[in-house]
Amino acid sequence: MQALKRLPGLGYRSAEKVALHLIVENPKANTGLIDCLTQAAEVLGPCNTCGNLAEDQLCSLCASEERDSSQLCIVEGVTDLFAMERAGIFRGLYHVLHGKLAPVRGVGPENLNLRSLEKRLEAGMVKEVILALGNDMEGEATCHYLNQEIFAGREIELTRIGFGLPSGGGVTYADEVTLRSALDGRKSM
Amino acid sequence: MQALKRLPGLGYRSAEKVALHLIVENPKANTGLIDCLTQAAEVLGPCNTCGNLAEDQLCSLCASEERDSSQLCIVEGVTDLFAMERAGIFRGLYHVLHGKLAPVRGVGPENLNLRSLEKRLEAGMVKEVILALGNDMEGEATCHYLNQEIFAGREIELTRIGFGLPSGGGVTYADEVTLRSALDGRKSM
Repeated sequence: MQALKRLPGLGYRSAEKVALHLIVENPKANTGLIDCLTQAAEVLGPCNTCGNLAEDQLCSLCASEERDSSQLCIVEGVTDLFAMERAGIFRGLYHVLHGKLAPVRGVGPENLNLRSLEKRLEAGMVKEVILALGNDMEGEATCHYLNQEIFAGREIELTRIGFGLPSGGGVTYADEVTLRSALDGRKSM
Repeated sequence: MQALKRLPGLGYRSAEKVALHLIVENPKANTGLIDCLTQAAEVLGPCNTCGNLAEDQLCSLCASEERDSSQLCIVEGVTDLFAMERAGIFRGLYHVLHGKLAPVRGVGPENLNLRSLEKRLEAGMVKEVILALGNDMEGEATCHYLNQEIFAGREIELTRIGFGLPSGGGVTYADEVTLRSALDGRKSM
């Protein structure tokens, strides 16, 4: 229970519930979970190229021949990559930074997955890079840094995903910053 | 209590609470509320020009000389106008449609505040119209209709507010449609 409680999103009661489920109600699930966790720990590591989870040197996306290697989408974490893939809207490759610049929390450029990004850019295949970082201060700072320090002088189109009203969202309930993004980002019809 | 319960957002318990507050705990608030409601019903009506709430023929925004009459922001309802004004990001004038096209619910163009819109456009002051309608099917249909039927052949720049990640929003928790809007609406840095 102590170990379960340390997992993100599990409180005292859910830890208790899960522990009893695994030990008393369904011991088979426990064996299954142990196997999965052991195997995952052995097999999974970061992709040498993009930082995604991989079973080999390269992740399944970087190894695929069906992805468009001229487009690179930069995301903060692996869960962002998963969200993009679930949406099925992007056919290029990714680069996972494993964080955002956050000087207040002591996260500087040296803590981000930038070296292999520079290597990829130097290889010359990439024509467009899309920054898919969050619409917050740290996302802003990271985009600014990348634009100034990593992309300056390169002949690569650098874009940032659009900000504005989310799907299904109306104007009435949008906050001020979202409305400003939406107004600034208005598009000709 | 019956009358209070009919108000949007008030259930059985809140109606009971409000009723007791007005009758038992604070009868002065009751008199104040009666005065406000009576006065509002007498004084307030739609602005002849834009459809906003007004105490005279014109609302305070249409009557103001400090607003830019070359920019018109089309919104669905008065609460959208209030949200834009609270954000303080727009210095032009508004036009309130009082609804969105919704054939399923029987709302057609004849139910929207379009006649006075055409009158305003014909006056020739307006150079840019910004469609600030929600990011949903009905908003989409209404924008399409306005573009095809009201703005076709006019020399007015027609734009639509941007859609994408809301303020503070990350990629991980965005739904598929929002991510698609964000990717489509990416902007050059």
